[in-house]
Amino acid sequence: MKKNPKVRGTSLSARLRRGDLMVADCPSRDVLKHMTSRWGVLVLIVLQGGTHRFGEIRRLIGGVSERMLAQTLQWLESDGLVDRVALNVVPPHVEYSLTPLGKEAAEKVSALADWIETRLPSILASKRKES
Amino acid sequence: MKKNPKVRGTSLSARLRRGDLMVADCPSRDVLKHMTSRWGVLVLIVLQGGTHRFGEIRRLIGGVSERMLAQTLQWLESDGLVDRVALNVVPPHVEYSLTPLGKEAAEKVSALADWIETRLPSILASKRKES
Repeated sequence: MKKNPKVRGTSLSARLRRGDLMVADCPSRDVLKHMTSRWGVLVLIVLQGGTHRFGEIRRLIGGVSERMLAQTLQWLESDGLVDRVALNVVPPHVEYSLTPLGKEAAEKVSALADWIETRLPSILASKRKES
Repeated sequence: MKKNPKVRGTSLSARLRRGDLMVADCPSRDVLKHMTSRWGVLVLIVLQGGTHRFGEIRRLIGGVSERMLAQTLQWLESDGLVDRVALNVVPPHVEYSLTPLGKEAAEKVSALADWIETRLPSILASKRKES
């Protein structure tokens, strides 16, 4: 992470212990990208409901393509948020669930999603007022 | 919004009162896109610190281009989250601040950002374990 002394009042040692999203090359930027990608948010929320197979997740999230869902699950798996288990059965199938870290992530993301869903009428009203 | 009876246990009337992010054509999807866009998250957090001019916001967020910042501010303004005030001074300048709705949005987004920054060491550790 590049030093950026103008951003926030944290000391260098504090910056080494945690990420800093305001710094362009901090690895936290990738995690933010994955968690808040359009489908990342929705996948975390669906998996909050429990373990699901690929096809189930795809059915629950309107409009997601197979390719984008696979990419999103791979991102979340590589960040340690999602567990992927390939069951040795016929026909073979793969199950996805949240890791303990993923459960924490899903809580934050679903608080955000819940706010958007609840406040949508106000947001749409402010759009109408403006135009 | 298209009816999607398989998603969640909400009644039709509840769905009309609030958005449903699992439904492909629900307008809440656009708000999610704007708020969780890479720069949307960071702009909301910067404006939590108070009113800022365009150039200040740009300096505080490492790596954002002028074009992307302008686009992001325009999105957030059109969703009623950000207020844009053009001051009639010489040289002319424009100030951005959060609306009351934007303050609520920023709280949710910064809870998420804070989690990412704090948990980054665990996330990076789980990446190393995997590879």
